[in-house]
Amino acid sequence: MTSRTILLAAASLGSLSLAAAPASADEGMWTFDGFPAEQVREAYGWAPDAAWLEKVQNSAVRLTGGCSASFVSPDGLILTNHHCVASCLFDNSNDETDYLLNGYVADRRERELKCPGQQAEVVTMITDVTDDVTGAIGTLTGEALTKARDAKIAELESAGCPDTETTRCQVVTLFGGGQYKLYTYRKYSDVRLAWAPEDRAATFGGDPDNFNFPRYSLDASFLRAYENGEPVSTPEHLTWNPRAPEEGEITFVVGNPGSTARLWTESQRAFEREVRLPVTVATMSELRGRLIRAMDESPQKAREGGDLLSGVENSLKVYIGRTGALGDPAFTATLAEAEADLKARSANDAAIGDPWAAVDQALANYRALYFPLRFTQPSSDLYSYARTLVFAAQERAKPNAERLPGFTDSALPLTEKQVLDERPVYPWLDKLTMEWSLSKAREYLGVDDPDSQLLLGKESPEQRAERLIDGSKLADPAVRKALWDGGMAAIEASDDPMIQYALALAPRQRELEQLADEQYSGPLAVAGAKLADARFAAYGDTLYPDATFTLRISYGAVKGWTQRGNEVPIHTTMGGTFDRATGNAPFDLAPAFAAKQAQIDANTTYDFVTTNDIIGGNSGSPVIDRAGTVIGAAFDGNIHSLGGNYGYDGTMNRTVAVSTAAVQEALETIYPAPALVAELGGE
Amino acid sequence: MTSRTILLAAASLGSLSLAAAPASADEGMWTFDGFPAEQVREAYGWAPDAAWLEKVQNSAVRLTGGCSASFVSPDGLILTNHHCVASCLFDNSNDETDYLLNGYVADRRERELKCPGQQAEVVTMITDVTDDVTGAIGTLTGEALTKARDAKIAELESAGCPDTETTRCQVVTLFGGGQYKLYTYRKYSDVRLAWAPEDRAATFGGDPDNFNFPRYSLDASFLRAYENGEPVSTPEHLTWNPRAPEEGEITFVVGNPGSTARLWTESQRAFEREVRLPVTVATMSELRGRLIRAMDESPQKAREGGDLLSGVENSLKVYIGRTGALGDPAFTATLAEAEADLKARSANDAAIGDPWAAVDQALANYRALYFPLRFTQPSSDLYSYARTLVFAAQERAKPNAERLPGFTDSALPLTEKQVLDERPVYPWLDKLTMEWSLSKAREYLGVDDPDSQLLLGKESPEQRAERLIDGSKLADPAVRKALWDGGMAAIEASDDPMIQYALALAPRQRELEQLADEQYSGPLAVAGAKLADARFAAYGDTLYPDATFTLRISYGAVKGWTQRGNEVPIHTTMGGTFDRATGNAPFDLAPAFAAKQAQIDANTTYDFVTTNDIIGGNSGSPVIDRAGTVIGAAFDGNIHSLGGNYGYDGTMNRTVAVSTAAVQEALETIYPAPALVAELGGE
Repeated sequence: MTSRTILLAAASLGSLSLAAAPASADEGMWTFDGFPAEQVREAYGWAPDAAWLEKVQNSAVRLTGGCSASFVSPDGLILTNHHCVASCLFDNSNDETDYLLNGYVADRRERELKCPGQQAEVVTMITDVTDDVTGAIGTLTGEALTKARDAKIAELESAGCPDTETTRCQVVTLFGGGQYKLYTYRKYSDVRLAWAPEDRAATFGGDPDNFNFPRYSLDASFLRAYENGEPVSTPEHLTWNPRAPEEGEITFVVGNPGSTARLWTESQRAFEREVRLPVTVATMSELRGRLIRAMDESPQKAREGGDLLSGVENSLKVYIGRTGALGDPAFTATLAEAEADLKARSANDAAIGDPWAAVDQALANYRALYFPLRFTQPSSDLYSYARTLVFAAQERAKPNAERLPGFTDSALPLTEKQVLDERPVYPWLDKLTMEWSLSKAREYLGVDDPDSQLLLGKESPEQRAERLIDGSKLADPAVRKALWDGGMAAIEASDDPMIQYALALAPRQRELEQLADEQYSGPLAVAGAKLADARFAAYGDTLYPDATFTLRISYGAVKGWTQRGNEVPIHTTMGGTFDRATGNAPFDLAPAFAAKQAQIDANTTYDFVTTNDIIGGNSGSPVIDRAGTVIGAAFDGNIHSLGGNYGYDGTMNRTVAVSTAAVQEALETIYPAPALVAELGGE
Repeated sequence: MTSRTILLAAASLGSLSLAAAPASADEGMWTFDGFPAEQVREAYGWAPDAAWLEKVQNSAVRLTGGCSASFVSPDGLILTNHHCVASCLFDNSNDETDYLLNGYVADRRERELKCPGQQAEVVTMITDVTDDVTGAIGTLTGEALTKARDAKIAELESAGCPDTETTRCQVVTLFGGGQYKLYTYRKYSDVRLAWAPEDRAATFGGDPDNFNFPRYSLDASFLRAYENGEPVSTPEHLTWNPRAPEEGEITFVVGNPGSTARLWTESQRAFEREVRLPVTVATMSELRGRLIRAMDESPQKAREGGDLLSGVENSLKVYIGRTGALGDPAFTATLAEAEADLKARSANDAAIGDPWAAVDQALANYRALYFPLRFTQPSSDLYSYARTLVFAAQERAKPNAERLPGFTDSALPLTEKQVLDERPVYPWLDKLTMEWSLSKAREYLGVDDPDSQLLLGKESPEQRAERLIDGSKLADPAVRKALWDGGMAAIEASDDPMIQYALALAPRQRELEQLADEQYSGPLAVAGAKLADARFAAYGDTLYPDATFTLRISYGAVKGWTQRGNEVPIHTTMGGTFDRATGNAPFDLAPAFAAKQAQIDANTTYDFVTTNDIIGGNSGSPVIDRAGTVIGAAFDGNIHSLGGNYGYDGTMNRTVAVSTAAVQEALETIYPAPALVAELGGE
C-alpha cells in the first residue's frame, strides 16, 4: 500500500476537481478499456495507442499481498517496492539471519527466496458481464439480491477459469454496481525474492518521513515468478530504462489502486467521519503504542514486531490524513457541491428516483451493525487461520453458488495457499494483537453486550488470548493442512482451542453478515446502480470508476509543487541522503549504503514526483515514459494526497517514485547484483 | 475529574436544551450569587433560602488537585472521592507498602498521610470586579489587552489577599469576559489522608465500567485539613446522613466543575472537532498503549504506572465521548440553532456588532499556532519541574503586574508548593512520557520544522529523553528548593541538563504565548465580552456561565432514565457487586471487600443517579438533600452525559454518586474506622 503523511490541520486543498463530474487535470485511475486518449492528447499533445496500452497491460503485475509491480525481463523478473516484499524478507528471517535488516541478493537463481502467501497475476482479458449480473439480480432486494448476485458471480468466475491452476477469474463491481466486469488473470503462485536493499535504505526517515518529500528512499526490490520450479517466460515485459526523469515529461503509472471513495454520497462520508475513522484512529494508535513499547523489550521482539509496526504506522497516517481531509470544510464543501450538481441534473429522471435517500437509510442501518461487525473478528494470525479453516470447511460443503465470497471454486485456491503457506507466528505478538482487539471489543461494545460475552466469557482479554494461543497448534502448517483436507469432520473433531473458538464465533459472524447484506449491502447495490445511471446520464461515459484493486492507468507529468510559497523540486539525489542523516534512527544510514558513500554517484536522481493520481495498492507500480520504458517505481504520495481517497487536487497531489537510475546505481555499486544488471540490460 | 464513558456512535441526544438560551429542566452549573431560586421552586415546590445556601457554601471544599469535596465534621474532616486521593495514596506508596492497592485507615490522627501538592480551599467572599478589569482593558486589543487585563488581575488578587499564608485570591473570568469576579478563599495547604478503601473497591469494573451505570464503586475517601500541625476547626460543615436516597427527591450537587464549552461559537466547536480532539485522541491512545505494555513488564511498573494510566484512560473516554457528541448531527444542529437564535436577536444591536466574525478570525489564527503551542511542551515530570523553576526565576524578577499568570504574588505560593512538595519520580515512566511526547511533536510538526529541531536537535526522542532524565537531579526536592530559592543566578549556574533544556525552550514558548495572546486570546476576550452583552440583552441575566473550576451548585432529583426501552433503576446495592464479579481484573473483588461478603448488608444502597448537571472537576462533590445533609459523593456521569461539555440533555444525562449509606457500611464493616464513624455521627 502506498503510504501517506499527516495532513496539516490548517491546510486546505486548492483546485479540487469534482469527483462525480468528468475528470480534469491529471485526475483519474482509468480502466484500460476506458482510457481517455483524447483527453491525454489534448493535455500533452500525444497519447498512447492501442498497441502501447496492450503491451503495458501485459507487463503489469498484481501482487496479492496488496501491491503492484511489472515484468522487466523475459525471465519473469518483477520490479516492485521494498515495502511490498518486507513481509517476505521478514518471513524468511530468524534471529540468525535477518534479511529484512541486511537486505538480500540472490547470487544465483536457485537461492531466490520463496514468498509465503504471495501470488503474481497478469490481466489477460476483461469481459463486460453487467447484463448477466443485473439480469440475475432483477428486482430482488436485500439479502436475496446479494445471494443472487454472488451466485451469478461464482458461476461466471467458474465458467471463465476452468483451469484454476494457472488462471484466476474475478468479477469486479464498478461504479458501485453500475458495471460488472469479469477479469481473467494468468496467475503465478510461486513468487520468489531476487534482490532487496537493506531495510533502512528503503525506510530512511521511517515513519516521520513517510508521505513526505523531498525523500531519500530506495524503496525498490525484485521478485521473480516461477512455475514448476522454473522461472516463467515473460516475453512481454517493460524495458528497463535507468535514466533520470525530465521535468514536465509525460508519465504513466500502471497498477492496482486499492480503493477510493470518490463516488461516495454525503451520508457515506458522514459515516466515515463520524464513526469509522474515529474508532480506527483511536484503536490503531493504542496498538501502535503497545507495539512500540513491546519491541523495546528485546532485539528479538524489535525484529519480530517490525513488520506489523510499519504496517500499523503507515495505515494510521492514512487514516489520520483522511480524518484531516474530511474535517476540512473547504474540501468537503467541494465534494458536497459535486453531489448537489448530480442531484440537480437527475431531479427530473423518474427512472433514477432518489438513490441518495436509499443510501442514507442503508448507512443508518449500518451504524447499528458496524461495531458488532468490526469487533467480533479478533486480531490474531492463529485466529485468522482458524476462522478460515472453519469457514472453508462449512462453505465447501455447499454448492458453489451458495458459498460466501472467498470460498467459491474460483477463490478457493488463493485462500488455500494463504492458509497453508509456511510462515512464522510469534506467540507474544499474536497475543499482543489479540489482547488488544478483545479489550477494544469490550470497550466499544460494552461489558454487558452479548457479543462481548461471546468473545470473552468470564475471562479477561489477556487470559483468553493466552489460553487460546498457547493451546493452539495452528502455527504448524501440517496441522493446518490436515484440518483443511479433513473438512468439517476434522474441524469438529479438533480439540484445538482456537478452532473451537472460531467455531463458537462463526454463527454470530454469519448472522451479522446476513444482517449487513439485508440492510446495508443489498440496498447499497440497488442504489449504487441508480447512482451510476444518474452519473452516466449527467456526464456521459468518460468517467473513471472508484478504485477496486484492479488494473488502472493514470497519466501525468514529472512536476514539483508550491508549498507555503516554496517550490518543491522534482527530485532528490542519492548524495542528499548523507546530508540528511543524523546517525540516529530512523535517520541513520544503512551500513552498506554508508560504506559505499565514496563509490555512489551523489548526483544520481533518487526519488522524484509526478502528478499521477494514485492511492494505496499502487505501491510498486511502474512509472512509464512515452516510449513505454520504465523509469521508476511509485511508492508513496505526498502529504497533500491524503484527501485523495475522496477527491484529487492536481495542484498539490503528487506521486512519489524511486527512479530506475537509483536502483541501477544500487545494483551496480551498493548491493552488487551483476546478473540482474545484465538481465535488466537485455543481455 | 469526573469521568465519562464512550458515546455510542448511533446515539443521539433527546431533548437537548439550548445552552445559550435560559436553562431549562435541571440544567445549569449555577454560581451561588446567581442561584435560580424561583426556577427551582417552580420545578420542585421548594427552594433553598439564603441561610441554607450560605451554610453549604461554607462547607464546600475545592481541592487543587482538580476535585471537589466537603467538610463533614467540626475537625476538618473532608469527604471526597477515592479517585481524587489516588495520587496521594500512590505518592505515599512504595514496593513494600502499597496503600493504593490495599487502602489505608489511619488508626489515629497522627498517622494520617500527607498529600503532596494538595491544598483545600473554601470560598469566603465573591466580589464583582468587572468594572475594574474592563476599565483597565478599555479599548485595548491583542497582546496589549491581555497584558493590561492580567496586570489588573494581579493587582486585585494581591490587594484582596495580603495574607498569602491562609488566603488565596483568584479573579475568575465568567461568560468569556462578560464578568470578572474576585474569589477569596480560606486555604489549607496541609491536607492529609484519613481513610481510603482498597483501590479495586473504588475502581471495580475499571475502565470498562467507567461512565457506566448500573455501577458498583466505593469511590469515596476522607481527607483532613491541617494547620500548624493540628486539624483545623470547621464548625460549619455538612451533616453526615448515611441514608439511602429516595426516588424523586430533590438533590443539590455543590462543587467545582472544571470547564464547559456551552457558550462556544460554531467556529470554536469546529476547531475542537477538526483539530484538537483528533490529535488528542490519537496521541493519548498511543500513550495508553505504551503504558499498558510497559506496565506488563513487572509488578513494580504495574504499580508505578497505574496512576497515570487511569488518568489517561479516563481522559481518553472523555475525549472520545466528546468526539462522538460533536460528530452527532442531531446534537450539533441544536447547538447551531442556539447560535442562530442569539445572532438573530442581536442583529440590530450596533453596540454588539459581529463578535462571531471576530471569534472566527481568532480561531483561524489559533489553528496556525496550535501544534507549536501544544508540542513545544514535553510531557515529563522532571521537565515540568524544570520549566516551572526557570519561568519562576524569570518571572519573579519582574514587577507583579508584568508576570505571567501562575507567577503573580497571589499564585506563587501554590506554584511553589507544587514544585517543592516531595513526591516520587519514576525514571522509566518519565522517559516513557517524554519519548512519546517528543516523538508526537516530530510527527505533528514535521521533521524539518524548526520547533522539532529545537526539541530534538540531532537526537532521537529516546536518546534525548534518556540523556535529560538520567542526567537530571530534579527528582530531589532539595535540589528543586535550592534552585527555587536561588532564583535566576542558580538557574543560570545549573548544569542540570533538564534545566538547560527548559532554558533553551523558554524563549520559543514565550514567543508562541505572545503570538497566541496577540492573535487569539486578546481578540477572544473582546469578542467574549460582546457575546456576553448579546446574551444578557437577549435572555436577561438568569443565565449560568460556563464552568471555570469555581464553586457552583446544580439542582436535580434522584431519577433513573430509559435506555433502549429499558428503565435504568436509580441505584445499585452492595450485594450486586458479588453477582457482577468474574474473578478477573477489573471485575475481581478487592480482597478485604470479598472477605467481608457475609458481614456486608447486601441491600445497602451503593451507587445512585440524579439529574444534576455536573462535569469533570465535580468529582467528590457532596450530594445534598433538602435538609442540607450529605447523602452521597458524586464521582461520575453516565454515558449520555458525554456531550455535557457542549449541552445538557435532562432526559438522559445523569450524575453518578456513591451513597453515604455505602460509605457508612464500609466504615463499619469492611475497612473499620470506629473513630471516623463516631466523628461523622457527631460524637
